[in-house]
Amino acid sequence: MRIGVDAMGGDFAPGVVVEGVSQALIDFPHVNIVLAGHRDRVNFYLEKYGIAGHPNLEVVHAPSVCEMSEPSAVSLRAKRDSSITMLAKMLKAKEIDAMATPGHTGATVAATKVLVRTLPGVDRPALGASMPAKEGRFLLMDAGANTDCKVHNMVQFALMGEVYARYLYHKERPKVGLLSVGGEDIKGCELTKEAFKRLEQLPINFVGNVEANTAFEGACDVLVSDGFSGNVMLKCAEGLARSTGYWLKQVLTKSAARVVGAALAKNAFAELKAYGSSDVIGGAPLLGINGICIIGHGGSNPVAVRNAIRVSAECVEFGLNQRIVAAIEEAGDLAKENVN
Amino acid sequence: MRIGVDAMGGDFAPGVVVEGVSQALIDFPHVNIVLAGHRDRVNFYLEKYGIAGHPNLEVVHAPSVCEMSEPSAVSLRAKRDSSITMLAKMLKAKEIDAMATPGHTGATVAATKVLVRTLPGVDRPALGASMPAKEGRFLLMDAGANTDCKVHNMVQFALMGEVYARYLYHKERPKVGLLSVGGEDIKGCELTKEAFKRLEQLPINFVGNVEANTAFEGACDVLVSDGFSGNVMLKCAEGLARSTGYWLKQVLTKSAARVVGAALAKNAFAELKAYGSSDVIGGAPLLGINGICIIGHGGSNPVAVRNAIRVSAECVEFGLNQRIVAAIEEAGDLAKENVN
Repeated sequence: MRIGVDAMGGDFAPGVVVEGVSQALIDFPHVNIVLAGHRDRVNFYLEKYGIAGHPNLEVVHAPSVCEMSEPSAVSLRAKRDSSITMLAKMLKAKEIDAMATPGHTGATVAATKVLVRTLPGVDRPALGASMPAKEGRFLLMDAGANTDCKVHNMVQFALMGEVYARYLYHKERPKVGLLSVGGEDIKGCELTKEAFKRLEQLPINFVGNVEANTAFEGACDVLVSDGFSGNVMLKCAEGLARSTGYWLKQVLTKSAARVVGAALAKNAFAELKAYGSSDVIGGAPLLGINGICIIGHGGSNPVAVRNAIRVSAECVEFGLNQRIVAAIEEAGDLAKENVN
Repeated sequence: MRIGVDAMGGDFAPGVVVEGVSQALIDFPHVNIVLAGHRDRVNFYLEKYGIAGHPNLEVVHAPSVCEMSEPSAVSLRAKRDSSITMLAKMLKAKEIDAMATPGHTGATVAATKVLVRTLPGVDRPALGASMPAKEGRFLLMDAGANTDCKVHNMVQFALMGEVYARYLYHKERPKVGLLSVGGEDIKGCELTKEAFKRLEQLPINFVGNVEANTAFEGACDVLVSDGFSGNVMLKCAEGLARSTGYWLKQVLTKSAARVVGAALAKNAFAELKAYGSSDVIGGAPLLGINGICIIGHGGSNPVAVRNAIRVSAECVEFGLNQRIVAAIEEAGDLAKENVN
């Protein structure tokens, strides 16, 4: 199995990526890694982490980099030799089985959409973000790849998310909910009301409308959403988590007793932070493209990079895409734009 | 000035409401309060809090109650003598200047829409939720009154929110942002892209697209959104705040040292909780109806009830609705559905 890794993705590239790769080479000896990045910058870290010339490692030179601040269309058009574009081309040509990047979501979505194309029956790929519920996690689908969605897109997101949740959460019948503004069946906007009617006909464990707050209580394993609202939810959670960390620091430094108290409970706060972290998950899958693609957070650490490689490999072994194609096919007209 | 208060709204009605009213009668001697609720149930608490027969207090008997779990259409149709419906009728007849309810948002929106109607030039009322930024707060508009919105609705939300923020945050030129999925001007869905074009032409301090995470960093004073995404954001924040409280408890009870530490810093956690609380604000204004209406959280405590009455009175004094009508008129075609 060959997994392509974007050495230039994320805020701490390529050092953090190479360190994660060095760990993956030890932990997953059955995986061959194709590292795409600027040769000179990557080589320094290959030496540093002692994996230069490793038999399971191949480096592909990618001279240009997609900057995080850059619009994705620019990255795709102007940077044909960027690490993301080169990996997407290799994925298309089946020279690699999967790609993982801790980086530029927009550029990766654009490159894979255009170069790798979608699976048979899938109109648009969607990003599945693993969110922390009170206990366990849930997959938010779509977390931001599609701003304007139609009903059949939502159906496809549900089916793809359900298949992924079977792998990720080891559940035979994951609970699939529809993100809405009220728990009752009749609540929602025009899009969700129409989507509801189709979702309840699918051969999945559809639990109906789920509000954002009850999702955190564990109401479902997969939360289906258009990419706009899904992205709002993802970023709201990120923003509030960061604010909460900030407020916690403020209130815990207001008196000497509190400072002592906080010091005694120090590890607790690190654990709290880990609840929200997606390092264990490694990243968000871009589901629906004709290949496996895991997109990590821009702030990924080496553990996250190592786990993105693990998840990529497991998706290949699980036969994720074959299962998605089968599920879409089984759904028939319900997953198609024009139902006759 | 006469402020109507819904005695039967919220999870702890009517006791909590009457307690809040008793405080308001002391703090705001220029306000006459019209308390709508079931006479027998209300009287007990009027005696308890020593305000039976208070010269500034009038009780209106409302035999039926809108249950929190009830669909709002049912409340409106079947319960013509509920406290919410009776207050809406009084607001329409100008028998009261404002109404405050710590309760059923859906029923209140439905009753005021149908009975009180909207201000001249306003198509749909919108709910303005005060959200905690890292420092200070921002007004999320619409937080859930309208699930499907058109471009001119968004323009009206922006104008109404801007006027309210001038009152609430005492800022002459509040920063108005548009909730979107990327900071750049071109990011967003079809609705936000069209709304963007109109918002930048308004005589307001429009700061462009704002993502949910940067809103918490204080990117704007007013965050304009359709009611679906706005409600997702509001409930995501509520849900994550509750989960965080739960996780905090989990991690702080894992060892003896942590328990001691948490005890030393106990007040800090109460303060942390207060950051997210809207008790000071008293509730969310329903903007755009032909009258003042403040909707509190179902879990409102007496302080929140007292502050909802304060905010209602201040909105009347501020001339909120006259200012909204003027702002909509000034915007001309930009705030209308069909621009020629």
